[in-house]
Amino acid sequence: MAADITESVPVSPWWGWAPPTPGGALSDGTLAVLAERLGVDAAAARRPGVLDTPPAEPPGESDLTPPALSGEALAALAAAVPAGAVAQDPATRVAHAAGKHTPDLLWQRAGTPLALPDAVVRPGTRAEIPAVLAACVAHGVAVVPFGGGSSVVGGVTPLAGDHHAVIALDLTGLSALLDLNERDRTATFEAGVRGPELERALAERGYTLGHIPQSHQQATLGGYAATRSAGQASTGYGAIAELITAIRLETPTGPLALGGHAPASAAGPDLRHVVIGSEGTLGVITEMTVAITRKPTAKAYGAWAFPSFEAGAEAIRALAQDGAAGDAPDVCRLSDEEETELTLAQSGGRPVELLRRWLRSRGIETPALLLGVWEGSGSEPKDRFKRARRILRAHGAVSATSAPAAAWDRGRFSSPRLRDELLTIGVLVDTLETAATWTNLAATHEAVATAIRGALASGPGGDAPSAVQGHVSHLYRTGASLYYTFIARAEADPIAQYERVKRAANEAIVASGATITHHHAVGTEHAAQLPAEIGEQGVRILRAVKRELDPTGIMNPGKLI
Amino acid sequence: MAADITESVPVSPWWGWAPPTPGGALSDGTLAVLAERLGVDAAAARRPGVLDTPPAEPPGESDLTPPALSGEALAALAAAVPAGAVAQDPATRVAHAAGKHTPDLLWQRAGTPLALPDAVVRPGTRAEIPAVLAACVAHGVAVVPFGGGSSVVGGVTPLAGDHHAVIALDLTGLSALLDLNERDRTATFEAGVRGPELERALAERGYTLGHIPQSHQQATLGGYAATRSAGQASTGYGAIAELITAIRLETPTGPLALGGHAPASAAGPDLRHVVIGSEGTLGVITEMTVAITRKPTAKAYGAWAFPSFEAGAEAIRALAQDGAAGDAPDVCRLSDEEETELTLAQSGGRPVELLRRWLRSRGIETPALLLGVWEGSGSEPKDRFKRARRILRAHGAVSATSAPAAAWDRGRFSSPRLRDELLTIGVLVDTLETAATWTNLAATHEAVATAIRGALASGPGGDAPSAVQGHVSHLYRTGASLYYTFIARAEADPIAQYERVKRAANEAIVASGATITHHHAVGTEHAAQLPAEIGEQGVRILRAVKRELDPTGIMNPGKLI
Repeated sequence: MAADITESVPVSPWWGWAPPTPGGALSDGTLAVLAERLGVDAAAARRPGVLDTPPAEPPGESDLTPPALSGEALAALAAAVPAGAVAQDPATRVAHAAGKHTPDLLWQRAGTPLALPDAVVRPGTRAEIPAVLAACVAHGVAVVPFGGGSSVVGGVTPLAGDHHAVIALDLTGLSALLDLNERDRTATFEAGVRGPELERALAERGYTLGHIPQSHQQATLGGYAATRSAGQASTGYGAIAELITAIRLETPTGPLALGGHAPASAAGPDLRHVVIGSEGTLGVITEMTVAITRKPTAKAYGAWAFPSFEAGAEAIRALAQDGAAGDAPDVCRLSDEEETELTLAQSGGRPVELLRRWLRSRGIETPALLLGVWEGSGSEPKDRFKRARRILRAHGAVSATSAPAAAWDRGRFSSPRLRDELLTIGVLVDTLETAATWTNLAATHEAVATAIRGALASGPGGDAPSAVQGHVSHLYRTGASLYYTFIARAEADPIAQYERVKRAANEAIVASGATITHHHAVGTEHAAQLPAEIGEQGVRILRAVKRELDPTGIMNPGKLI
Repeated sequence: MAADITESVPVSPWWGWAPPTPGGALSDGTLAVLAERLGVDAAAARRPGVLDTPPAEPPGESDLTPPALSGEALAALAAAVPAGAVAQDPATRVAHAAGKHTPDLLWQRAGTPLALPDAVVRPGTRAEIPAVLAACVAHGVAVVPFGGGSSVVGGVTPLAGDHHAVIALDLTGLSALLDLNERDRTATFEAGVRGPELERALAERGYTLGHIPQSHQQATLGGYAATRSAGQASTGYGAIAELITAIRLETPTGPLALGGHAPASAAGPDLRHVVIGSEGTLGVITEMTVAITRKPTAKAYGAWAFPSFEAGAEAIRALAQDGAAGDAPDVCRLSDEEETELTLAQSGGRPVELLRRWLRSRGIETPALLLGVWEGSGSEPKDRFKRARRILRAHGAVSATSAPAAAWDRGRFSSPRLRDELLTIGVLVDTLETAATWTNLAATHEAVATAIRGALASGPGGDAPSAVQGHVSHLYRTGASLYYTFIARAEADPIAQYERVKRAANEAIVASGATITHHHAVGTEHAAQLPAEIGEQGVRILRAVKRELDPTGIMNPGKLI
């Protein structure tokens, strides 16, 4: 059975993605690949230090900087929310100290978060938020809106900027379904609703949002909007920016409510797109209305191999450009040769051996694997699958049975858990992404993968083995996304190792003329590259809007711009 | 044969849409309906006054206010462009004095334009534009970017604002195809290219933009972007905002180049959406890249009748919401009972009599007609048509043969020409539009039509006959557009008559919670309603962006905000 998108998981622990999987999350196949490719003996690799098994208890009072929040500010915040909604205990502060990119987890595991919120405020109703913001303006306190805390770009790092203190504004108490309009096929939620909870509320009425990023089990709807997120099925359902019909932002200078009058409008610039992607720098997204779809009752899976990543890219380009509407799958993933090899090696066994033999018989030695999932009802997914298959075959696709696509669907939320276990055995792993036009796609893919490999090879330990794998995960008429996973034995300073990789990748992306981020957002991680993307004039526009809505600059300092 | 979208027409004359159609544009059917419904005898109705046949010559030097432009400003402008590119002759000034809504035409016909540009500057290259803007900043001259001049909301009225003079910046000299990238399926054009010219350049390579508003034969690509336009086939191809992948704006404080790095990005707010719909108030759109599609080689037409507009709306809602991707037609128009009746009455003849009889036999007395056009290649349009037909039939659609849809396609660009002739015979006609959610659609349609009827009936002449017809022309999952045509005998002061109608309609739209404009834009006509749409906070954002990019406020004063 495919992963259930209504299946909730506990809120992330402070040191990782999810509580440990009983029996461990690493399969025998994964362990074998680690041993063979990276020379990592998992059993022997559990070693002390920053990569040690996370401690059962977070740092205590004495390990942390005391909260900087002034007495007046604390009193004003306490007056803005019900009793108990302002917390300063170490566990709550540490749980809101970081997002989930690998440096965040390493800092957290070491008990040395980059920064700590001076308090965590958890409103119980939307009506409390203006008072919280007013208190922060009055007392010079920075505000970091905090949803699922799943940012992988430093988007929730509690930086105080020019202010005397910083709070994390935990929005997960605001998770109500406010309205479900079946005639309009829209649903209005409070912004703090997490992915599975949102899908459960819709599923009870027979609907889905269809926006399922890998972070789905932790992330919130508000976070999706703030980061201009794209789900794994965005090829079919559209990215979050296409799904939001109305959005409400509470700013330090008052509310901003946009959209909802009509499905489309020519009444000036579409300011929803200023809020979407604003990453908490303009205000707090408190509620939004999203377009919903009937929950699919049927799926078709397809997997094909191509002689190379480039050949596969040509085939999916034809599908996106010359296929009829709906031919492209809802989920479309084309792995490069390295990712395909690692996937097959981890699966292993007789079926994989037969598949390799079959592909060799068709002249494919180093396959690039394409997975597609078509969703809908009745015969529609299968019909669309057949139309797509015709185009793909005409471009050299060789069937690889549907099994790899179904397997992907089952395991689609597992990777972030694997990272926790890999870190524990001294393996550094993380992901990064971009998107490019079709013209630039192959060159960008090559440049970025080469940059990551080069950065990993240039460590103090010399040319240690690593794996750098990539795939296309979002398909458009004019181009596609590129997503990379890099895996290597952790160096003595794994954060420096990570930063070396990230710097090299960012440089390669900018030099390729691609976008610095397709769906992870900017945060602190990509802020230096934003001017290359939108120009100095674009940055000036963002600053002008921020000055207008947040004149004292309390909203999420140090992010985006 | 359907209207050829590469077919150019002469640039609009100063007094109307197009030069007179030889033999007249009004068919016998139209004349009969005018006589029967409005009591207008066309032959007898040619009468002197503001509605007289437009004079052959525009007003001369002595009829016009002399240009206010200072000598220094004129010299600076002349230095910014090649010789001959700055014009102040009466004919050129009058030709750039107005857009094309009915009051514009009435003022122009009367030789009393609302305002006149003090000069018309027509750059020959994009590189000249920064110097033109610098001259205008230095000498306090307002700038109205002028493309096809087809605004129906006062968007190109040459208002000087706080400045001593105003120029029209005629962009139609900038019409080059700069790049056609077949791999990316994108084309980059200079912004002044008119619709037919653009389609001709693409057709030579086998492509189309698919953005075909009724203004297509006059309007420019830059105008499409500036007004956040939607074409008649937007249900299939998407509105202009969805087709623009990159856009460049020259502002008084420098260039702003956005997009083009990738098909999608999460690098902060999508600032293209601040430029799209900015109506010349932030700067001059000089070039843009748009997504293109293979030119369709096959079409399927369908037409169905429903017992009422509401029943038809329910059927197209099902098509939009429960149809598979591509089931909805590229062009989708559902006429209300009044529009259907007038369309049938104008066609007349034996086929219409048979159709009426057939519909009556199926219990349909006052039909609401749905037209659909599906475009593509091979069997695809027909396949999509068949899938759509299944859904429409399940919702009570009765076939009306495909003839009405094919007839619409043939005549799709004719209405603006009809208006010229109707004005000449003393008939006031214009259109207005909105969009609403499905929940609000029927009530909005009723409220707006009633408001227009009421306003027409409340004239000095008492309850004179009129026709108010409406249709849905753009289909979305969450709602649809509504488009109205109103026709009445012109009162002695037809501008006051128009304004009475427009005021009543605007009030009804705002009271209904619908959008003040789906695709005509804001201009001067809807500026008062913008705060109801985006809130005071939204207006403040627009002002802040304008202050940043255009600190002296030279760009298109009095429009949008």
